[in-house]
Amino acid sequence: MLPRADGEQRPGLLIVLSGPSGVGKDAAIAALKARDVGVRYAVTATTRPRRPGEINGVHYYFYSREEFEAMVARHEFLEWSWVHGHMYGPPIAVVRGLLQEGHDVLLKIDVQGAANVKKRVKDAIFIFLAPPSIEDLVERMQKRHTESAEEVEVRIANAYKEMAALPEYDYIVVNEDGRLDKAVDEIQAIITAERLRVYPRRAEII
Amino acid sequence: MLPRADGEQRPGLLIVLSGPSGVGKDAAIAALKARDVGVRYAVTATTRPRRPGEINGVHYYFYSREEFEAMVARHEFLEWSWVHGHMYGPPIAVVRGLLQEGHDVLLKIDVQGAANVKKRVKDAIFIFLAPPSIEDLVERMQKRHTESAEEVEVRIANAYKEMAALPEYDYIVVNEDGRLDKAVDEIQAIITAERLRVYPRRAEII
Repeated sequence: MLPRADGEQRPGLLIVLSGPSGVGKDAAIAALKARDVGVRYAVTATTRPRRPGEINGVHYYFYSREEFEAMVARHEFLEWSWVHGHMYGPPIAVVRGLLQEGHDVLLKIDVQGAANVKKRVKDAIFIFLAPPSIEDLVERMQKRHTESAEEVEVRIANAYKEMAALPEYDYIVVNEDGRLDKAVDEIQAIITAERLRVYPRRAEII
Repeated sequence: MLPRADGEQRPGLLIVLSGPSGVGKDAAIAALKARDVGVRYAVTATTRPRRPGEINGVHYYFYSREEFEAMVARHEFLEWSWVHGHMYGPPIAVVRGLLQEGHDVLLKIDVQGAANVKKRVKDAIFIFLAPPSIEDLVERMQKRHTESAEEVEVRIANAYKEMAALPEYDYIVVNEDGRLDKAVDEIQAIITAERLRVYPRRAEII
């Protein structure tokens, strides 16, 4: 537990940053990391092979497919998902350890994963990073990818589905074009405000 | 109602800044005003005589004692109090008007007044501006005033009483010596975060 200005102990906050695919979650996390807002980022476990220069426990926890599946079977992930043929997920033990040490933990999770975290964690703080509009999101996707019309349609359908999750969140931060700094300012303000609560939300992993 | 980035209307927030006498509420408000954080400050009504240069409806609403007392009798103040022999209080009609126009309203109120506001308003946001310690608060008072030992004792007793109200508040901001800017940053972060809620608190005056 970190000491508070008033001398009391404050338990760690669990902040979940989520939002539709393509909205800019990675860029927001990178900008937050550059600012050093005093949160910890839980190292994710993956079955993806280690690349040169990557350190186990720093960049990822590298597991074999068998190890990862055994952990899934034991419900040892807050949530997990497939990305490009590999499994990824934050181990509960890692997140719980950081929280118990009093660190505020920020997790970047897709919308589906956030719904799962919501079931497993009491009193986490959910921030929805939103595009200015669905049209804008689709446009960004089209700029980023060279995809068939069918693939684009699937992505649009997904975007609507993901936007529909908004009512489950605590905060909405709009990532306007070319104004990532404003979005990151707002995320930082949310973290600051949550730290100032007389009754801070104490994340409990069930 | 002011438009939100996502096109929906957001009702005005009512933010109550309070805290023990001598903690620095006036200085915090002055600093907030200088920053222009997009909130409105409800003009207070008073029975104090108008001073040269003061404009009715801008600096204060100036009322006679009889008018003020009639308004008190009709419960037309959010709260009111005596200060140096004059009556002061924010008229409900003023606060309600600003909120209905979609403005976020900031009220500076003493601890006793804040308790009354809490009874009259649903979903206001209560910020407690706190000294680093009771000892610090007493020291500041002693620097500001040349008072008898008895007067100081009364003030210390009041400070304890006022600090005891903390559990009724949503947020605590510590006004550390020489770090008013940090306290004002934190108040600003709270206002920003509350504006970003998926379900903003809509202040309702009962």
